[in-house]
Amino acid sequence: MKKFESKIRPIEWVDTYCRMVDQTKFPEKYEYVDIKTGQQMFDAIKTMIVRGAPAIGIAGAQGVTLYAQELSKNNLSFEEYKKQLIERADYLVSSRPTAVNLYWAVEKQKEIINKYSTIDEIITNLRINGKEIELEDIAINEKIGEYGAMVVPKSATILTHCNAGALATGGYGTALGVVRSAYANDPTIQVFADETRPRQQGARITTLELVMDGIPVTLITDGMCSYFMKKGMIDMVVVGADRIAANGDAANKIGTYTVAIAAKYHNIPFYVAAPLSTIDRSINSGDEIVIEERSHEEVTVINGKRICPEGVNVINPGFDVTPHELITGIITEKGIARPDYKSSIEALFGDKV
Amino acid sequence: MKKFESKIRPIEWVDTYCRMVDQTKFPEKYEYVDIKTGQQMFDAIKTMIVRGAPAIGIAGAQGVTLYAQELSKNNLSFEEYKKQLIERADYLVSSRPTAVNLYWAVEKQKEIINKYSTIDEIITNLRINGKEIELEDIAINEKIGEYGAMVVPKSATILTHCNAGALATGGYGTALGVVRSAYANDPTIQVFADETRPRQQGARITTLELVMDGIPVTLITDGMCSYFMKKGMIDMVVVGADRIAANGDAANKIGTYTVAIAAKYHNIPFYVAAPLSTIDRSINSGDEIVIEERSHEEVTVINGKRICPEGVNVINPGFDVTPHELITGIITEKGIARPDYKSSIEALFGDKV
Repeated sequence: MKKFESKIRPIEWVDTYCRMVDQTKFPEKYEYVDIKTGQQMFDAIKTMIVRGAPAIGIAGAQGVTLYAQELSKNNLSFEEYKKQLIERADYLVSSRPTAVNLYWAVEKQKEIINKYSTIDEIITNLRINGKEIELEDIAINEKIGEYGAMVVPKSATILTHCNAGALATGGYGTALGVVRSAYANDPTIQVFADETRPRQQGARITTLELVMDGIPVTLITDGMCSYFMKKGMIDMVVVGADRIAANGDAANKIGTYTVAIAAKYHNIPFYVAAPLSTIDRSINSGDEIVIEERSHEEVTVINGKRICPEGVNVINPGFDVTPHELITGIITEKGIARPDYKSSIEALFGDKV
Repeated sequence: MKKFESKIRPIEWVDTYCRMVDQTKFPEKYEYVDIKTGQQMFDAIKTMIVRGAPAIGIAGAQGVTLYAQELSKNNLSFEEYKKQLIERADYLVSSRPTAVNLYWAVEKQKEIINKYSTIDEIITNLRINGKEIELEDIAINEKIGEYGAMVVPKSATILTHCNAGALATGGYGTALGVVRSAYANDPTIQVFADETRPRQQGARITTLELVMDGIPVTLITDGMCSYFMKKGMIDMVVVGADRIAANGDAANKIGTYTVAIAAKYHNIPFYVAAPLSTIDRSINSGDEIVIEERSHEEVTVINGKRICPEGVNVINPGFDVTPHELITGIITEKGIARPDYKSSIEALFGDKV
């Protein structure tokens, strides 16, 4: 199975700083910005220069390294250095308090801080560990891509929703990792991308990274998916996930559930691609997942202009839950879980073979 | 059954001219424009100052009257007057060549032109006939509303897609006529309006006319419908139609079919509201309906700005067909057709009782 060589690296540690793609400039510009201080990293996370759960985790880890480098210039005692660095690390997590990957990655760096006994050792090992988190994420996505490509039909048109791509991760992507690996082995593959209102990640981000990587992509609006399914123009659906329950129910960007129902109605396979770290076995079903209500302006304002009059109510759930009975398989770096998910997920975690 | 008193009259003949609401100004402004010449009417139809099949038909009829008034000032012989007026009438149809209602209404006016033997008689009867077409459309919608309201559950939340409202018709609306009549009899009714990408008629027009008429409305994006259905927040769906086949298959704005599938999955009644004139019994099924492909910019540009990079393919079907098996009933001015539609539609047309 061939691997795809992607041009997209949204976040990359370079010697003593972090280079990232400024995602607030999409789709007009694809520009790099060099993040050289901890506060710059805090702001980059908060203002969504970097986005996507895995990418934010990497950013957090490297933000701790940036703080470690800065504080080393302050002539602090070792104990005071450690104390201030831990404070800065915790502050960094507050840039996006609900991001589980951010918390996880910063905690990993705090273990390094507590493990070593000189400032130089701490800095060196924070750099190494941050780079490892970055590269491991790409490696996991490449494995997801490899497993996923095995279930992509020849010359398939793959529909995806939102952006579960290289630009949401360290690189390669989860759902779009499956696309990349499939395309590397069959260049007749193509993608349909849902616009994904309200924030339009499909239009602004998914199409951008596929165009850059030379993979054919067609943009459609969210309501169109069934029309193309009925015409036989969609062969499979692959989406990412924000959180997956022990029974296989998957929370993902709002609108995913509608696509899953349409896929079921047309007998089209519907796959979720996500690393095992997305599976939260402490929750039994999707009913336990709390859905974040987001700003109403995401719905009412596009490109700086209102699309509706004053006096209209708005509800803006950020995510929905696709129940496991609509999911053909969950593609992970350890293989593909299939129904019954409870036992197939346990098997992937190695609880039983 | 109470009738709703609506503030919305998108097109209205006043003595010697036509007053219409300028729908290109939505949602910022709700402004009237007075159309006093045939060429102004041609331009109003072409630039979508007036929109919606029934409203365009009314505009066409009144445009012929405007030409008749103008030409009467040219000292033409009666034969030359009639000849030039028929030419102008045919020219008016070319402002929107695929609009069946426009063609139909102009043909009705041409019958008047050919029936009378003086210029004064022609003008008087064109005015009367145009006004009749205008008022008959409202009366039909009020009947649709009355029948539809009978199947709206108490305190229902009604989901609609696109705009099948007062602003697409002479007044009152078809799908929104059902809403208006239901609300007049039960003020705990409320509406959820799909944004309806790409042209956003739900956000720009449906919410506007409901806010003006004081009916509670919540704007959602197209992908969200299933989320709210699953939460039990949607009690029924009512949409309009552009064309209905003899078997009940209904063509309507793109995205309608996706909503119908979601409604079916959640066991929520899905109604189509349309006058009998929308039913084309010369076609056996929706497969015979040709779907118009529209400008790609409707998908790629919003409020003057691109939402995706260059190099992306786009397909933009303007309509989709909801198959009859997803439709609970078709609400017309003569009653509600239910499966089997072939015979229930024939019964409404009076072919059998």
